[in-house]
Amino acid sequence: MRDLYLGIDTGGTAVKYEVVANDGSAVGGGEVPTDPRDAAATLRALAADAAPLLGGAGLPRLAAVGMACAGIVNPVTGHLGRSPNLPGWENSDLGGAVSAAFGGVPSALANDVNGALYGEFRHGAGRGCRDVVMIALGTGVGGGVIIDGRLLVGSHFGAGEIGHMVLDADGPPCTCGSRGCLEAWAGSTGLLRATRELVAAGGATPALAALVARLGSDLTTRDVAELAGAGDAAAVGVFAAAGRKLGQAVGNLVNVLDPDRVIIGGGVARAGELILAPCRAAASALILATEAQGLPIVPAELGPRAAAVGAASLAREKAQEGA
Amino acid sequence: MRDLYLGIDTGGTAVKYEVVANDGSAVGGGEVPTDPRDAAATLRALAADAAPLLGGAGLPRLAAVGMACAGIVNPVTGHLGRSPNLPGWENSDLGGAVSAAFGGVPSALANDVNGALYGEFRHGAGRGCRDVVMIALGTGVGGGVIIDGRLLVGSHFGAGEIGHMVLDADGPPCTCGSRGCLEAWAGSTGLLRATRELVAAGGATPALAALVARLGSDLTTRDVAELAGAGDAAAVGVFAAAGRKLGQAVGNLVNVLDPDRVIIGGGVARAGELILAPCRAAASALILATEAQGLPIVPAELGPRAAAVGAASLAREKAQEGA
Repeated sequence: MRDLYLGIDTGGTAVKYEVVANDGSAVGGGEVPTDPRDAAATLRALAADAAPLLGGAGLPRLAAVGMACAGIVNPVTGHLGRSPNLPGWENSDLGGAVSAAFGGVPSALANDVNGALYGEFRHGAGRGCRDVVMIALGTGVGGGVIIDGRLLVGSHFGAGEIGHMVLDADGPPCTCGSRGCLEAWAGSTGLLRATRELVAAGGATPALAALVARLGSDLTTRDVAELAGAGDAAAVGVFAAAGRKLGQAVGNLVNVLDPDRVIIGGGVARAGELILAPCRAAASALILATEAQGLPIVPAELGPRAAAVGAASLAREKAQEGA
Repeated sequence: MRDLYLGIDTGGTAVKYEVVANDGSAVGGGEVPTDPRDAAATLRALAADAAPLLGGAGLPRLAAVGMACAGIVNPVTGHLGRSPNLPGWENSDLGGAVSAAFGGVPSALANDVNGALYGEFRHGAGRGCRDVVMIALGTGVGGGVIIDGRLLVGSHFGAGEIGHMVLDADGPPCTCGSRGCLEAWAGSTGLLRATRELVAAGGATPALAALVARLGSDLTTRDVAELAGAGDAAAVGVFAAAGRKLGQAVGNLVNVLDPDRVIIGGGVARAGELILAPCRAAASALILATEAQGLPIVPAELGPRAAAVGAASLAREKAQEGA
C-alpha cells in the first residue's frame, strides 16, 4: 500500500528528508550529504537511506516525493533553472530525476523558502490561514507568499525576493549590489555589520564591545542575542534597529498583499521578541486597512524541518490531486 | 435577449458607465451625478439614463451589472465597507442594491483601482498577461494586483495599497501619517510639493520659478509636464525624481510578485516618458531575477474609462460563470 510521502530539503551540503503519513503525521527522517555536482547520485544515496522507513528496497510504501531546492524552480514542469549552490543540478529536469530515483512515483518541486513556507502553512505557524507571507532571516533574507492557499511563484518563477525590497535607497550596501535592501539590515550579515559599526563608532556598551573584540569573525547573531537577553542596551538596540526595518518591510507587504498572517523564520528570528516586538510596532504604524492592523506577526514553528515537511505536504497534495 | 453588460464607475461626484456586448465591444456609455448620500436614488437615475442602450425601460437586454467603487469592497458578498467619499453608501449590501436597481440581474463589485486594472487587463495595456501590477498616479497613488488572472483582494479586502509603500522612512510626509510613502513622491500632491520646494530653495530654472509664481495654487502636474516637454531641466528633474522613486517601488514589487507586466496609469502618468524612463531605469537596477529584468513597464491605455470597462468585464464573467 502506497501510504507514505517523502519530503526532501536539498541544501548545498546536506539533503534532509522527512517521511509523513496520509494524515500528515511524521513517520521519521534523516539526512545524507549533498553531491552538488551529481543529483542522481545524491538521490540514490537518499533512497537507500530512507528505504527502511518506506517498506524496504523498492520503496513499496512510497506514494509521492516532494523536493525543496534553492534556485529558480518551475513547479509545473519540475525544471530547475539557476541554482548557484548546486552547479551539477541546475538547468535540468529535476522533477523527472526525482521521480526516476524513487520508482517513478509523482514528484513535486518548490524553491527552498516556498518549501519552508508551505510546511509552516500546513503544519506550523500558518495553519488555518489562507494568505500568508513568510520572511526567513538567515545569512541572507528570503521570502515566500501564499495567496488563496497556493504558493506564489510568479511569471518567471522569481517571486518572493522579499529580502531585496529596498527600504532606503541610501541605506547600507547589500550583497545584491543595491543599497538599503531589507537583507542589509535584517540578515545576519547585515546585523553583524551594524553591530561592528556601532562598536567601531564608540556607540556600544563595554560588554558588547568586549564581545565583538573577543569573538572577532566568529561572532554570531546568537551571541548578540544572548547579550541582549541579559539586558545589554546596545545589543537590544541592534535587534531593535533590525526589527524596525523588518517592520517597514512587513508594513509594505501587508499594504500590498493584505495577508491574514506574517511568519518570521530563520536563525536571526531566534532572537524572538528582541526583533519581533519592534517589527510589530513599526509595521502597525504603517498598515492602512484597520481590519489588517491586528494581523498576527508570529515566529516560525518548524525550524530547520520546515522545508522538508512542506515538500512532503506538496507531494501528498500532488498525489491526491492525481488520484 | 440578455446580451449586454453594464459597467459602472462610481466616483464621489459622478457615476460613469459603459455598456458592452458579449464579445467585449463597446456599445455606448454616459454618466449621471452621484448622490453620495443615496445609492438607490443614484442607481435609479443611472438605470433611466442607460435604458435606451439596454432595450428601453425594463432593460430587457441587460445580462449583468458590474460596479467599481472607492472603498473596502468584498467582491464575494457585494458588501461595501468604509468608503469616505460615499457616506450614504458605505457599510451596506451594495451588490444587492445594484442587482435590485437593475431588475435582479447578477452584479459584480470591485474597488475602483481594481476595476481600472481589470479593464486594462481585459481590454487595455494588460491584454494577454497573467500576473499584472498596476499603479495609478493620481492626487494620491492607488494600486492593484492580478495573480493568475484574478484580482488580489486580500484577507481583509485591503490589498493593493501600493501608494503607501514606504520607500524611505525619513522621506517627505504623506497624507496617511507616515513618511516617505510612494504617494508622497509620485502622487500629484507630492510632485507639486517637491516642485514648490525646489523653487523655494532656489534650485529651479527661471521658467519653472515663473510658472509656479504665476499659477500659485492652480499649478497642476500637466503644467510642469508641459514645461518639461519643452526641455526645461528643472521640470524634467522633478519628474525624474518622482520616476526614480516609482522605479524603486516597481523594483520592490517585481522582486516580490514577479508579474509579467507593470502598468502605470493616472493623471501624473500622462507625463509619459518623463516619468516612465527614469522609473524603468531605477526598477531595472533592482530586479533580481534575470528573467524578469526586461518586463514591460507600460502606460495605461484606457484612461478614465478603465474602471467602467473593467466593471463590465467582471459583470460579463460573473454572468458566464453562473450560466
